[in-house]
Amino acid sequence: MSIGTPAAPAVPRAVGDARRLLPPALARWTDGLEPALRDMCAYQMGLRDAHGRPTGTAAGKLLRPAFTLLCARAAGGDPAAAVPAAVAVEFTHNASLIHDDIMDGDRERRHRPTVWARYGVPMAVLAGDTLFGLAFEVLTAPDAGLPPDACRHLARTLRHLMAGQCHDLRFAETETPPIDACLAMMEGKTGALLGCACRLGALSADAPAGWDERFHEFGTHLGVAFQLVDDLLGIWGDPLLTGKPVGADLRARKRSAPVVAALSAPGAASGRLARLYAAPGPLDGGALELAAALVEEAGGRAFAAAEARRRIDMAWERLVSLDIPADARAELEQLTAQLADRRW
Amino acid sequence: MSIGTPAAPAVPRAVGDARRLLPPALARWTDGLEPALRDMCAYQMGLRDAHGRPTGTAAGKLLRPAFTLLCARAAGGDPAAAVPAAVAVEFTHNASLIHDDIMDGDRERRHRPTVWARYGVPMAVLAGDTLFGLAFEVLTAPDAGLPPDACRHLARTLRHLMAGQCHDLRFAETETPPIDACLAMMEGKTGALLGCACRLGALSADAPAGWDERFHEFGTHLGVAFQLVDDLLGIWGDPLLTGKPVGADLRARKRSAPVVAALSAPGAASGRLARLYAAPGPLDGGALELAAALVEEAGGRAFAAAEARRRIDMAWERLVSLDIPADARAELEQLTAQLADRRW
Repeated sequence: MSIGTPAAPAVPRAVGDARRLLPPALARWTDGLEPALRDMCAYQMGLRDAHGRPTGTAAGKLLRPAFTLLCARAAGGDPAAAVPAAVAVEFTHNASLIHDDIMDGDRERRHRPTVWARYGVPMAVLAGDTLFGLAFEVLTAPDAGLPPDACRHLARTLRHLMAGQCHDLRFAETETPPIDACLAMMEGKTGALLGCACRLGALSADAPAGWDERFHEFGTHLGVAFQLVDDLLGIWGDPLLTGKPVGADLRARKRSAPVVAALSAPGAASGRLARLYAAPGPLDGGALELAAALVEEAGGRAFAAAEARRRIDMAWERLVSLDIPADARAELEQLTAQLADRRW
Repeated sequence: MSIGTPAAPAVPRAVGDARRLLPPALARWTDGLEPALRDMCAYQMGLRDAHGRPTGTAAGKLLRPAFTLLCARAAGGDPAAAVPAAVAVEFTHNASLIHDDIMDGDRERRHRPTVWARYGVPMAVLAGDTLFGLAFEVLTAPDAGLPPDACRHLARTLRHLMAGQCHDLRFAETETPPIDACLAMMEGKTGALLGCACRLGALSADAPAGWDERFHEFGTHLGVAFQLVDDLLGIWGDPLLTGKPVGADLRARKRSAPVVAALSAPGAASGRLARLYAAPGPLDGGALELAAALVEEAGGRAFAAAEARRRIDMAWERLVSLDIPADARAELEQLTAQLADRRW
């Protein structure tokens, strides 16, 4: 370690498990797809490069599958048995990313062209549909070892996910929503799937009755915290670490939580920010820096950071009464803390 | 009945059952969606008009749900018990229509603007995703009374559906495919879901072991026949009956089965058709009529009609050894015959 570089945080075991167990399991399923669909789906997940060549790894943080594996352990099960559930969650996540990138017109993700930018909108619609379907196929495979309920929980999650994305799209077009509506949108858009990821982990561990519901709520609150941190990084994140252009969310005039909180606040900074968002022309260069400063001055940054901490507390409250093995609990705490403090 | 008008064919009981049972069941599920998604999904299915007002009915032929209800009866069950399966099939069908219209750039369906033309591409992507998810939610509802296998069959069907649509998109862009590849594409694009519709009917009737597989194959072959008739109507159908512009498929230079068969045939007509398809500029007016005449002269029309009959024979072969109640068998025959001979 060179002097002046902060120590990299220890990688929690579940993240290591996910990085080791997921790529081959994901590839086994995508390899069975029609070749053109296989290449697109595998490209999205980093399982193949832009020329269809296998990479032997997977892109992304694999955060959701890591939570599935870890919650399986927390519920007394074996993480290896939770791999089908984790795969289904990761497919669902990537399906929604492919479609979100179409809806938002985003051309770049993880330093690479998005699926629609690389393969065109029609094929990208199809790739997303394929991954949504594949998630259910994984979950219902005879050897997945999951109760029939698992499929119903994933289906419900999709409904909440779509409702969240729908509100997100509408917020982008219309008046600034109240901050509560913004947080409710985040519960759908990000909370629902992380909640499902945690629940499916518990279900695959054959947890005691009622535990899966607790894990679901734990993950839902955590998902909102995760999205709040994401929103902060979308304004103040380092492009080298996030893989997104600097000030990406402001550039797109997104009404993310810090922006909505700032716009709802009293004071001059809020008014100046509103005029900047309403002005025509691109938001870049000095205007971008000014917008970020105004969000901060109006309290948007502090609100989002505090709300993230509050959601993490709410998440933990759901698990407090459960008899979770000490090592799994410690690791959940470690992962949660890293999530709240991450820079990517 | 006025003189000179041919008698309308008798409506098979299953179609009547579908028209009576499906609209309220579909609406019960869509009514639970986030309002903007509800309105779009209900608009697609004709459950609501373009202003979100309930219509009390549903658009479309409801052919797939009719087959689900009828196959339930044929397998010794009660059609009312097959309604959840029929609803799931109809949601899946409409989800794929919404996304297909985006991919194909089609602005009109059933005499109305398509969902993307009415609500924009981003919202239409979301509406399709919502209906795909809702199909699984219906299928796994506690009172649906279906075996867990049902969910796996629908998930597999999506994979085949997407593979078929993928080939269809590629055929539209590249060289003319061999006719076998074209028929394989149709098995995915139309056969898979009708096969699933029939299978889910049998599954909801708790049919003897192995029956659901037979019904699946029956429906798959029938689906290809159905698509072949659709392709014929896409060239020679009456716009007033089909709801599509005259010569719609030729206008879009689609490589539908009659066109592919014509292009693969030897002779002058085939070559002239190929040049017409390769020429720049819109295909309309006299060129449209000429193209239709050339497809016919090169044998494309006769091929598609013969292949449709052959597929229907193959479909019936799958059921021949099953002990199906006489009235249900007669009705399946009636519905199949009408399908082969339909003008809409």
